[in-house]
This record gives sequence, C-alpha cells and structure tokens, in this order.
Amino acid sequence: MTTRSNPAESTGARPERQPPGQDWSSWPIYDSASLGFRDHWYPVLWEEQVGRKPVPVTLLGERIALVRQDDRIHALHDRCPHRGVPLSLGRRQFPGTISCPYHGWTYDLTDGKLCGVLTDGPDSPIRGRVSVRTYPVEQRFGLIWVYVGDGEPHPLDDDLPEELRDNTFVLGGRTEIRKGNWRFAAENGFDEGHAKYLHNTALWRLFKVMPAWNKTKVVNRDKWIVRVQEEVHWEAEMPGLGLWTNKRWWKRMPLPDAPGKAKNVNPVIASLDLPGFVSIRLPGILRVAYPNFIHYEWYVPVDEDHVRYVQLMARFETGLKAQAFKLKYLAAVRWLFHGQFTAQDAWMVDVMDAPPEKLYRPDLSITAWRRLVERSSPKVQPTEALDNKR
Amino acid sequence: MTTRSNPAESTGARPERQPPGQDWSSWPIYDSASLGFRDHWYPVLWEEQVGRKPVPVTLLGERIALVRQDDRIHALHDRCPHRGVPLSLGRRQFPGTISCPYHGWTYDLTDGKLCGVLTDGPDSPIRGRVSVRTYPVEQRFGLIWVYVGDGEPHPLDDDLPEELRDNTFVLGGRTEIRKGNWRFAAENGFDEGHAKYLHNTALWRLFKVMPAWNKTKVVNRDKWIVRVQEEVHWEAEMPGLGLWTNKRWWKRMPLPDAPGKAKNVNPVIASLDLPGFVSIRLPGILRVAYPNFIHYEWYVPVDEDHVRYVQLMARFETGLKAQAFKLKYLAAVRWLFHGQFTAQDAWMVDVMDAPPEKLYRPDLSITAWRRLVERSSPKVQPTEALDNKR
Amino acid sequence: MTTRSNPAESTGARPERQPPGQDWSSWPIYDSASLGFRDHWYPVLWEEQVGRKPVPVTLLGERIALVRQDDRIHALHDRCPHRGVPLSLGRRQFPGTISCPYHGWTYDLTDGKLCGVLTDGPDSPIRGRVSVRTYPVEQRFGLIWVYVGDGEPHPLDDDLPEELRDNTFVLGGRTEIRKGNWRFAAENGFDEGHAKYLHNTALWRLFKVMPAWNKTKVVNRDKWIVRVQEEVHWEAEMPGLGLWTNKRWWKRMPLPDAPGKAKNVNPVIASLDLPGFVSIRLPGILRVAYPNFIHYEWYVPVDEDHVRYVQLMARFETGLKAQAFKLKYLAAVRWLFHGQFTAQDAWMVDVMDAPPEKLYRPDLSITAWRRLVERSSPKVQPTEALDNKR
Repeated sequence: MTTRSNPAESTGARPERQPPGQDWSSWPIYDSASLGFRDHWYPVLWEEQVGRKPVPVTLLGERIALVRQDDRIHALHDRCPHRGVPLSLGRRQFPGTISCPYHGWTYDLTDGKLCGVLTDGPDSPIRGRVSVRTYPVEQRFGLIWVYVGDGEPHPLDDDLPEELRDNTFVLGGRTEIRKGNWRFAAENGFDEGHAKYLHNTALWRLFKVMPAWNKTKVVNRDKWIVRVQEEVHWEAEMPGLGLWTNKRWWKRMPLPDAPGKAKNVNPVIASLDLPGFVSIRLPGILRVAYPNFIHYEWYVPVDEDHVRYVQLMARFETGLKAQAFKLKYLAAVRWLFHGQFTAQDAWMVDVMDAPPEKLYRPDLSITAWRRLVERSSPKVQPTEALDNKR
Repeated sequence: MTTRSNPAESTGARPERQPPGQDWSSWPIYDSASLGFRDHWYPVLWEEQVGRKPVPVTLLGERIALVRQDDRIHALHDRCPHRGVPLSLGRRQFPGTISCPYHGWTYDLTDGKLCGVLTDGPDSPIRGRVSVRTYPVEQRFGLIWVYVGDGEPHPLDDDLPEELRDNTFVLGGRTEIRKGNWRFAAENGFDEGHAKYLHNTALWRLFKVMPAWNKTKVVNRDKWIVRVQEEVHWEAEMPGLGLWTNKRWWKRMPLPDAPGKAKNVNPVIASLDLPGFVSIRLPGILRVAYPNFIHYEWYVPVDEDHVRYVQLMARFETGLKAQAFKLKYLAAVRWLFHGQFTAQDAWMVDVMDAPPEKLYRPDLSITAWRRLVERSSPKVQPTEALDNKR
Repeated sequence: MTTRSNPAESTGARPERQPPGQDWSSWPIYDSASLGFRDHWYPVLWEEQVGRKPVPVTLLGERIALVRQDDRIHALHDRCPHRGVPLSLGRRQFPGTISCPYHGWTYDLTDGKLCGVLTDGPDSPIRGRVSVRTYPVEQRFGLIWVYVGDGEPHPLDDDLPEELRDNTFVLGGRTEIRKGNWRFAAENGFDEGHAKYLHNTALWRLFKVMPAWNKTKVVNRDKWIVRVQEEVHWEAEMPGLGLWTNKRWWKRMPLPDAPGKAKNVNPVIASLDLPGFVSIRLPGILRVAYPNFIHYEWYVPVDEDHVRYVQLMARFETGLKAQAFKLKYLAAVRWLFHGQFTAQDAWMVDVMDAPPEKLYRPDLSITAWRRLVERSSPKVQPTEALDNKR
C-alpha cells in the first residue's frame, strides 16, 4: 500500500531504530501542559443540560458556572469574590443576573459586574467596583463552547474542523468526564498501535477484521497531522509464538484506510482528500473519517487527572438519509462505538502511567503529535490556574 | 433608628468606603488561629453522652478521652505514651482508672499518673514515672466543659455569658460537628449581612419580615462587641434590578432589634441593657438576645476543617413558663431554628473559601470581631498541636 | 522458674531501669526499614489463588503480577515499560507469555523478555531489547514464595524455620492483608507484655489461665532470638488497685512455657530444645512452639501502611493424627486462634502510633528484636522502591 502524501509534508524520518528517551523532556511545552492550552474554544455540555439553575463545570482547572438566560448561556468564574462562595449555588433573583446565595451579591451575566448588593442597599459603595471573570460562550451543534483565554477570542470556526463550518450534516454525540490526564486521552486517540490489540474484543469490530500490524507515517495537512498507512498486514507469523491475526471466517475485510479511496464516498468527505483516516490537531481534536461519516473526539482538560471526553459523529446528509443516521446512531453507534468501544480506551487512559516510557515503532504517531504541539507553541495553562476547590 | 451606645465605646470609624485588603494580614493573631485559642473553657458534649465507656473527642486539634467515674467526667490525652494506642479504646479495669487495652498500663483519672502496669507486676519500675496529660473538666447546664490551656485554669464563669451565672433559667440545646474552620462559623454568626438573604427562605422566618438592608455599627460592652442598627430598611428599589424586600402580606414585622426596647421584656434580659440583639466575645461565643429568650452559639475548634457547633437557648423563667418553654423548644425551636435555620449557615461555612476576599460595608461586623481578637491578644493554639491521628 | 539458657547467649543486660529514648534512633537500620529487607523469600498467596488470570500483589512496595503457566507460577514487575499499563490486566495470548492489554507487547514468563510485539509485526525492532523485571518464585507447602532481592537468590530453605525442611508435617494456614506497618506486626508478635492483657478476653484462652506478669530474658538460638521466662506470676496484688489475675475457677493452668519440658512432647519439637516457646528471626518470622504443634507468623511488608500477615500451624505427624489435626484446624483453630485471637493483634497494629514511645521492662523483647536487626545488617528496601500506583 502506498500513500498520496507529499514527502515534503512528512513530519520527518522513519521511526528510529533506537527508542527515544524515556521521559518527556524532548517536548517541554507538552510536558508542562497538564492543564492544556489557553486561547481556545472547548465544548463542555449540551445546551439542554443547562437550565435556569446554574451548572458548575471545571475547565483547564478553572471553576466555571454556566447560567442560562432565555436562549443564551453565560459563563462566569464560579467564585464570589466576597467570601469565596460558589456562584453556581446562587439564586436567579433578578433577570439577567445571578445572586450569591450568601449575601445576595448580584452579578450581571453579560459582563460579570457586581450590579447590585441586595443586603447593602441601593447606595452600596462596592456596587460596580467588583466583577467576576466571564468567559466567552458560543452555542453550536447543540453544544456549549467556552473560550478559556486572554483578550478577544478568535472565532469558534477557527477551532472547528473545517468541514463542520459550511456543510449540512446531522450529529450524534456523547460527553462525559473520564479519569486520566487529557494528554493520555489525546495520545490514545491518535495512537497507531493499540486498536489492533485492545479493541479486537470490541463488539463494534465483531464483524470487521482489524489489521495485525501496519507500517505508518504521519503527514501534515494544514492544522492537522494525518496517520497514513504505508503497509497493512492482516496476519503475521510471530517468531516463537505463532500466528497473529484478527481474521475470522465471519469477519469481513474493512474498507481502505484512506476514506477517499472507497467507492461511494460522501462528497464532503471526499473533498477533504485525506491520505489516511485518522488525524489530530490542537488543542486536542481527533478526526476519524470513514467514507460516509466522521467521528470526532475532543479531549477537554478538566484538571490534571480528569478529561472531558466529547464524542461526536457527523453524517453529511439531509432528509431521509439524515433521519436514518440519527436512528442508527441512537440504536447502535451510541452504545457500541461511543460506548463499549471507547470505554476500552477510557480504561487504558485511566491506568496508563507515563513517563517513564519506552516507545516503539508505531509510536511515531504519538511523537508526531507531541512535535506538532511543540512547533505550534500554544499558550500553556499554568498549573496555578487550578482552582483548589471543585 | 438611633442607638443608645456610648460613642466612646464604639470600635471606631464608620465602615470604610474602600474595602480593606483581600488577605488577613491585618489581623495576624487571628490569621494564625486556625485551631483557636488556648486558656479557655469549651463545651464539648452533654453529660449523658459519656457513660462508663470512654468517648474520644478532638478539641483545638488535641485528642482527648472523656471518661466518667460516678458523677464526674475526666479528660485525658487520648494516647498511651507507651506505644501510642488511644486510651479511649481502653478498659475500666479498676475504679477511678483507665487501662490501655494493649498492655494494661493503668492511669489514674484524676491526675493521669501511671498508677499500675498490670503486665509488669506490682514492682514495675515505670509505675509513677509516666503520666498522660489531663484537662480540667467542669459540668454545667448538663454540658461537659474542658479547659485547654496551661497552668491553673480561671473559673468557668469567666468564660460564660454573665447572665448565665446567677440567674435561674431553662435550656434547650444541640451540639454537633460541622465542616469548616471555626473562624468561618464565628464570622458567619456575627455577620451583619447574610441573614437577610441566606435565611429569607428559612421556615423560622416564614411569618416574620427580615430587613432588606441595614446600616450598622459595632460597639463594645465589657468582653463583648455588639452590633447596633443605625438604620433599618424594609425595602429597597435596587437600580437597574427592581424592588428588593422581604415583606409579604402574611408576614408580620419583627420586634425592635434592641431587645430592651420591646414591651414585656424579660427582666434579666432587660438588665443587660444591650444596644443591639447580636453580640460576640472570645473565645468564640455568640449571643442573640430576643425579648424573652437568648440564643447562644459556641464555635469550638475541632481541627482546621471542623468546628463543634454548640447551640443553646435559654429562657429566664421558672415553673410553668419554664416547662412551656421546654416543650416549645422540643416541639419547634430545635427543628426550625437550631435545625433548618442554622443548617443554612452550616452550608455556607462549609463552602466558604477565604482569603482572598473583598469585604463590603456590612462586613464591619466581621472586621470588628477580628480587631477584638487582635487587641485581646489571646494565646493562639499552635498548629503543631494537631494530633496526627483522630 | 529458672531457665536453661546459656547466659553467654543472652542478648545482654537485664532491662534498664530507665526507659530507653523515645525515638528509634538507636536502631538506625530498623528505623529506615519501613518497607522491609531485600534478599529474602516471602510467602504471598496460596497456589490455588493464582489461576490462568494474572493476580497483582504488592511486596516490599513493588507491584508484582503473579501468572500461572501449567504447574508453575511466575512473577513479573506489574508494569509494561511501554506506557506503564499493569501487566496483571493483560491477556494470555500465547502459552508461556503474557501480553499487555494495550498494544500486545508480549513477555516471556520465564525471563521477562519482550518476545513479541503483536502490533508491530514479526520484525519489530524493539523485540528482544526490552524486558520486565522477573522475580524468583518457589512453591512450597501450597504457598507461593517470591524472592525480592538482587543477584542469585539463596535457597528458600535458608529462609524457612529449620524444622520445616526435612520433617513430615501437616499444615493449616491463613493469609490476609492487614493495616499497619510490618514492624508493628513483628513487634506485636514477639512482644512479651501484651498477651496477658489484650488477649485475656480471647475465646482461645477461655479455658486456660494466662500469667499476670512475667520476668523475661531473651537468648540467641542460631538465626533466632527466644523469649525465656525467668519468673511467671499468676496473680499480683497491685498497690492501690487490687488483685490482678487471669485465674478463674473454670480455667486450667497452661503447660510449661518451654515446650520441651512438657510430657508427651512431639519428638520434632523436642529436638529443637527451645528454652522458651516464642522466637523470632529475620526477615520477620515468628515461631510459637507448643508441645504438639507450632504456630508461625510471617510479617510480609506490602507498603508502609500494610502488612501481609501469613499464619501457619504445623503438626509433625502423619496418618490419622495428621488427618485429625486438619479437621481440628478447620473446625476450631482457624476461627479461634488464626481468627479472633490474632484479630485483636491486628486491631492494635492498626491503631499503634510510635515513635514517640516509652518502653517498659517487658519491652526488652522488642528491643532485642531491633538489636537483632541491627547486628544482622540486612539490606533495607529503599522507600523509593514504592511503586506509586497499586
């Protein structure tokens, strides 16, 4: 199997014969980014999860209260500056505001300004002189997106896969908090090696063969890096051990790994002209493109030991086909793929414990991702940002 | 509304227009007193809670075993000096003593001396050469009071509200351990601001209006400081928000805030001549005086994150009136006031998280309390006093 | 009561009149040995507890996966060097190997070598270049013994009580993990003082008197030290307290404490010629010899706060007598002695909290044990050996 990738785009040499060092000192930005990167938009909850009652979330270590006013969701630092009581425990005393439950300090949802201090009267001297930090919020695809960063945010579109900007599609999805640092989740997502072994027991693959092993390279595509198969092996005679294969009489062979090569490719997906079916980009977005749908994962840092795992599946269709996909998603995909299959990933992300580590040939996908982070020089969220009470 | 307080007694200027600094460095003694103050008497349990079996408590970080011998309660450091086993796990082998369950080291309850070492015979050389620390204990109002301090204790009376010394009264009360540092509990107790907002949903206030906001000052009264209302506002038109009031058609207006001003004041309470109904003193005693009864709270430090919350309610009557009060206490006050009402306080004391903080006008009550601590120069319990196992 | 011990063998002077210092600085090796000693064999589980599925254990702070292949048990460091996933979560993909569940790194059970990397093909460059640490394993008495140490292990026999090497016997036993450091468990085992008090409520002693107090010395016997009674007192008039005794009308007096002095002594036990019935040796083995059976305890360090407590009881008989013992063990000894009796010890080992400590006359048994450790100069397991995830 060959590849369409432009060699000049390649992230570099073939995997080293010598495994790289055991720690992460070669990737200093990445090494320090246990809380992720500022100046990005992150999906956190579904719109319908936030009603009149405020909802607390933690994002990149920061405690945030999400509050709905009519059709808009607002995000404020979840700490009243007065005595540190979480605003998410507060009351909706007046429209467009939230009041701390303790002394009725009342904040404007749009700018976080202290617009009324109920227990200190209309002439309260502190009114207007205190505010809580607010966060830019967008609502898109039924999800709430929060910008954690400094200064004016760039458009949400800049942090979305480009095919989700102007096309029509239907979505299914799931969001949950999982144990483990977000980087383990991201590395697991783009990891070339594990699926063939860890997931060969997944129901999702019950009727589809997975390769025994591959030779892979990684190429650049705009903001993304893409895993490209150079060789795919369906069985291997392992010296001293025996035959290693996923082939079974009841399993059929999967489609080509570059989605554009299949027949009947969805035109939106074909237009992406992807040399391989798995790609990743900052601040931690995975795209797995099949000929007729795309699966996405966002690895949203919560704190150093938890990641918000947002899975979306998009089908670029309308009408009956879109409805059929929705039905299929709810009936099967949600449970088999976004459920049992990725629960195997969650298990590994939880028990993983690196560095130290010893990398092997397929881990060139992981090191390519780390190098992408280094050369992108994103703004690291400092660990001091971690709010001490969650 | 004006006040009877002597201006010379006032704790000082009107509240600053500028909020004070955000940390507690202006109150260095207070800032370091996370375990409270030595050389004071503290209420810990009801007498009937300690029977023949020793009971462990933690007080100002020190682990203490309470042991009953006939009608007297004794308090010993809850750690056998031999191998560190808690004496509260021990046996009552011989009258007037407690024996460590491990090797039968036997201590005299009155002075803590090792008066017998069962497993080392009558001539044990270590007998009489080791002792455990004992704590002075008093029994008053059905409560067990323990003195944590050095040298001879002052009389318990010195640490009691003066009206509880020579008068006749009936009591109802509750004691429990709550989350949060004792200082948050004390500040919450004397806090001018929060009741009007936090407690306006309390059943206890279902039929009584609370003010919308007040102007307050704080004056000195012997060992106490007293909150005095200079203005009481029952409703306020908050700019940009709307009307803020607690008035409802079914609620009646409360009595004047200075208990002496009401009609039919109980003579004992009238004799206190209090300029306001809420006062506080060291080492952390709150007094809320109504015309016919007084509610007290003791904020007894357990460790840095827990406070023993002792609530008493006293009515200075005898005979039928006293019996009626007891009934009323058990039927209503215990559940509505000492229960649901102060559970709202417990909630805030738990979630509070300061410093940093930004104080507002009504917080002059809190800063007056902190200043009272500073100028009283109490002996701070060092954090090293914290016994590592509880 | 006198003793047969040779004074030249004694561990030294009679107990000091002055209690020794309160910390452990006199025993620096012991003081640093919170994780025990390397270069020894330790019992961990019963053979039948390890089947085809790997079993994780922690030993001296090291995480170990036990894996069965046919009749043999193998022990490997429970961490795949690739990304730190526990091998005990792995699959038995090929005979004689274990495969990490994540990427199928496959290790030879006998030498820990990476003998196959399923997801990297037959020519994986890393194959044979990585290995996981393996531990020598022996199976004896139905137990799995693991050697934690460096270099070639000495024979398991060297770490067994000598009478268990060449004689025939039947065994009953129990193994469990208990709270508390292994040194507290060992000290509790050889402790002269506590049994007379702590255990005088044990059902096991319901019909047997225990002494009130003893005078004891400690003598050396090869690798062991032995507690020898110089005086045994069955009752004592404690000054100021009263009579202290375990005698009751329904209890019978026990056998002489030196097992060789009883009538009808089992010949194997008689041949040990023990001057007292309790002895201890490195790395933490207790032997309690009765005329007809011997009870053993191994205090196997797990981590700094947990000890694997292995109790064995041996009767040196064959045929019907052996069968009768097995029945008696299952019907009574297991519940009364290895159960309720030593559960009292477990309770104390858990709540013990030393240093600081103040030792008394009978603690010469404990200090003799600590001195035995010092003069044996065992290799201390460094606390850095503690694997951070268990």
